[in-house]
Amino acid sequence: VTADPSLFVFGPHATPEHLAETARANLSGVWHGARIHPYAPVPNTPVRLHIDVGANLAVSRVSVRCDSEGSAPGPDAPVFEATHRGTRWDDLAWRYVDEWVAELPGKPDGTRVRYAIQGHSAMTGASYDADSSAYQGTPTLFGYTVRDAKPPAWLDDAVIYQIFVDRFYRHGDAFDRPLTAPDEVYGGDLQGVREKLPYLVDLGINAIWLTPIVEAETYHRYDAVDFRTVAANLGGPDALHRLVDDAHRQGIRILLDLALNHASWRNPYFLDARQNAASRYRSWFRFTDWPDGYESFFGVSHLPELNTDLPEVVDYLMETAAWYLREFDVDGFRLDYALGPSLLFWSEFSTRTKAVKLDAYTVGEVTASPAELARFQGRLDGCLDFPELQAFRQYFVHRSIDSAAFHAFLERNDAFYDAHFSHPSFLDNHDMNRFLWAAKGDKQLLKLAATCQFSLRQPPIIYYGSEVGLSQTGDVSACGFDASRLPMFWGDARDTDLLEFYRRLIRGRREYSALRSGRRTPLVAEGNVYAYRCHGEDGDVVVALNGSDGEVIVDVGGAGRDLITGEEVSGPTSLDPLSGIMVPVA
Amino acid sequence: VTADPSLFVFGPHATPEHLAETARANLSGVWHGARIHPYAPVPNTPVRLHIDVGANLAVSRVSVRCDSEGSAPGPDAPVFEATHRGTRWDDLAWRYVDEWVAELPGKPDGTRVRYAIQGHSAMTGASYDADSSAYQGTPTLFGYTVRDAKPPAWLDDAVIYQIFVDRFYRHGDAFDRPLTAPDEVYGGDLQGVREKLPYLVDLGINAIWLTPIVEAETYHRYDAVDFRTVAANLGGPDALHRLVDDAHRQGIRILLDLALNHASWRNPYFLDARQNAASRYRSWFRFTDWPDGYESFFGVSHLPELNTDLPEVVDYLMETAAWYLREFDVDGFRLDYALGPSLLFWSEFSTRTKAVKLDAYTVGEVTASPAELARFQGRLDGCLDFPELQAFRQYFVHRSIDSAAFHAFLERNDAFYDAHFSHPSFLDNHDMNRFLWAAKGDKQLLKLAATCQFSLRQPPIIYYGSEVGLSQTGDVSACGFDASRLPMFWGDARDTDLLEFYRRLIRGRREYSALRSGRRTPLVAEGNVYAYRCHGEDGDVVVALNGSDGEVIVDVGGAGRDLITGEEVSGPTSLDPLSGIMVPVA
Repeated sequence: VTADPSLFVFGPHATPEHLAETARANLSGVWHGARIHPYAPVPNTPVRLHIDVGANLAVSRVSVRCDSEGSAPGPDAPVFEATHRGTRWDDLAWRYVDEWVAELPGKPDGTRVRYAIQGHSAMTGASYDADSSAYQGTPTLFGYTVRDAKPPAWLDDAVIYQIFVDRFYRHGDAFDRPLTAPDEVYGGDLQGVREKLPYLVDLGINAIWLTPIVEAETYHRYDAVDFRTVAANLGGPDALHRLVDDAHRQGIRILLDLALNHASWRNPYFLDARQNAASRYRSWFRFTDWPDGYESFFGVSHLPELNTDLPEVVDYLMETAAWYLREFDVDGFRLDYALGPSLLFWSEFSTRTKAVKLDAYTVGEVTASPAELARFQGRLDGCLDFPELQAFRQYFVHRSIDSAAFHAFLERNDAFYDAHFSHPSFLDNHDMNRFLWAAKGDKQLLKLAATCQFSLRQPPIIYYGSEVGLSQTGDVSACGFDASRLPMFWGDARDTDLLEFYRRLIRGRREYSALRSGRRTPLVAEGNVYAYRCHGEDGDVVVALNGSDGEVIVDVGGAGRDLITGEEVSGPTSLDPLSGIMVPVA
Repeated sequence: VTADPSLFVFGPHATPEHLAETARANLSGVWHGARIHPYAPVPNTPVRLHIDVGANLAVSRVSVRCDSEGSAPGPDAPVFEATHRGTRWDDLAWRYVDEWVAELPGKPDGTRVRYAIQGHSAMTGASYDADSSAYQGTPTLFGYTVRDAKPPAWLDDAVIYQIFVDRFYRHGDAFDRPLTAPDEVYGGDLQGVREKLPYLVDLGINAIWLTPIVEAETYHRYDAVDFRTVAANLGGPDALHRLVDDAHRQGIRILLDLALNHASWRNPYFLDARQNAASRYRSWFRFTDWPDGYESFFGVSHLPELNTDLPEVVDYLMETAAWYLREFDVDGFRLDYALGPSLLFWSEFSTRTKAVKLDAYTVGEVTASPAELARFQGRLDGCLDFPELQAFRQYFVHRSIDSAAFHAFLERNDAFYDAHFSHPSFLDNHDMNRFLWAAKGDKQLLKLAATCQFSLRQPPIIYYGSEVGLSQTGDVSACGFDASRLPMFWGDARDTDLLEFYRRLIRGRREYSALRSGRRTPLVAEGNVYAYRCHGEDGDVVVALNGSDGEVIVDVGGAGRDLITGEEVSGPTSLDPLSGIMVPVA
């Protein structure tokens, strides 16, 4: 496994050892894992719950207590009995597992269903709460909102640009001073972003994802000292108002990045919780041994985890999101470490967010397998597509899969999720080596990958600077994630050829619906050569990628002007080594 | 994983790494794995085939070519198209997998169906044989025989005694000389077994499994120099004739042990195949680089693997089995390393064996998970129950699971397989530490485990000497498997208390159908105390096992005489530490 460098994306989560540990933990008791069918419940249609009982329990009955008013089910709530469907052997947990299924009745649009599950042993009289190992004391609450879950229509032709705020631009600054430390506060701010809107409009993007803008301790701000703020050194609330207003005027939407799983240990609620035994905030965090023992993000003590199961915390965080929507009219949220809070939390997050702004977008950072991502269907509009990022690295950078396998991946990745599940594509972000660095600076590989990325149905995300050749001076494996967050190039360092390439790519995608339809017919998929025809309502576009070291001939099956070079091509067309074309064909 | 010492049973096969490797290998191409539903096809009922296509192939069509006359399907054989059922994510292989299903029409009783599977790529025009990685060159042939597959009725009340022939008894020998080497030929023979038939009749068993009796190089004889023999130093064919005749007269059936996966490198066919480039036997083995490179059992060069896919080899081995049945009237076969040859091989083996002797028994050694064992349903009458052996070790020896978990395991293990799948129970065999050695000589633990074993539905197997306290002088981890094959105790070393215990246990099981019904109601399952009521047509038997270090009271819910001690018990009954009772209750 470790032989495949693309697995960096998932770290230990993709290893058999971790999978086995997880399976053993889940299957030691009664396990639901919020596995419902369909994942996105629709009005007036029953919902099936899947429940596994591991080999260590002699459970003879499984029951589901259910509330349809958005509250935890009380003792008088209706109970639905599950049916035993059979026994399977689980290789990973190396044990038998009993499979139970329960059905909850269909409910009208907008119903907020809450339920808890228990297994019962007739033999011992004992009852076991489902998924109880993940929580302390109280039974785990599950839930969903019945609704026709669809991402906002504006996603259909969105091209998203990720700005790492501290490293993008600052008003009145040449922004070319060397970093004095990898994690210094360099000074990028919201006015800086606003001043660069013309640059972004010219580039062609129509949505910006801003990394966190809250008061925080660090330059990256994924550690909120105050969740409901705009940091003073970014320009404060006024700067955000002005940025959103200007962006909207120019057809650009603004997404904020919320890290709700944890806070900074300098967060006043946490300080109060630690200093004051009677603090009303003590339960907001997950103290295991107050005041110094508490759960924290990957064990990092300055990032204490919030108790996102507590109704007060849920209210506080969701009111915070609502405040950004109401006060600043932002267009949605990228949700950091969405694997932290429960799926019920995200269900409620989307429900409350969309109640304030119907076309707000909610997209989670879920660094996990497609099977895990799929569980967020109906809870969030979508998840960033990490599995696809891995396939891009495997195919374009590491060459560990060939064109046929890459094609097979893309086809299956499209078909796997609900049609309405959003899973934006990206080639890199602030938590990994940039694509260009991984490709050892070979910008032709970046161009090939981006050309493919921009022909897929899901909206593409560009990590700031990719379009001007921004790379790294060291590897994240040696230098940490800071290495991939260097200050944006604004001066002569810019690769204007790459910039022009990206301009044309973005313009092409926005102009030709075929590049956003997701309907593809493969033409060639051999070795490192991959060509396909994208089908649109108003015409087709042929994409041909020559990832090999030799010239190849691809028949584009028509004639047209390459959207990237502007050259006319027709029929059998010669492609230079490591080059691609994107040709609307008549 | 390695922390659980009971996993020795499966070795590396139970590790996540091995499972992941297997999953990646299977799911890199078109994979069937002989997964059919039902595993034991019955007359005039369609059979569903499950086929997976791994992420590396762009397969757009899957077809099955099928013959119903027992031959490999030719180019004119009918073709059945598979249907694409969906895409799943496989965590272990860490890739998408397309699921296809095909249906073959129901056929009359006795039909021998053969089929091969191909995936086709419309994009590249390529075709891929299913499971091709496992074989060289030719497409893998799958198959089954349509029949009402049931083990012989005599299995219902069988108690099987495993004799390691070289170490059991020799005519006219005190059989108490110390071994001069762990792997010496000690001298046990078939006449020795025959002379001890009265002992076995007195013990109460009614079937004997003899380890291999062929001409071989070693004392264990799992390395046939001649497959179709009775070794001269065991007494030759005459000795087997006399043993079978005498045994049958006394109501005891005889099972032979066939190791068909591999031969000795002194086997004349193998010698010829290596010495003679034009040898007709060259294809009988799996040469990778003739004459010195060939596949062998776990890489042991003196155990070359037979090419059990070759029709001539199939005929030779099956005629060998038929010869034992016809010539000696033996009652069936224990099949060594049944994971080696294909499931088609075993299907054919059972078909041909039962054509000679309808109530011959075929049982495989399959050291693998229940999911793997289940694949042998319909192919063999059954498999030795290694997963259950593991649970016995976990519960009685290592104490790594409690009574509730052990009970849950037994219940699930019964329900998991087809009702007609035979999976005999055993506490140890010649390839692992004896139970008594693993239990550090504590014979009370052996008694508890055996009491439980003799109350389960499946026929129990006793490894020779267990009934007289035969143990080891060293651990198999240090000394190899030879350590568990010491000469039988015939003299004063015998534990006569244990022997009497086993006599009564066997008599009890044979007398009370409740102990063979598999219908149990748990009474107590807490910590190390486990009690249950077995239900029979003609009355119930309560089994109570106190594996704890303290006295416990168990209500037997009636009155009766303990089959083991002969003592009368009724109602709430006190059990000493580490003791059990088996009480027919009125």
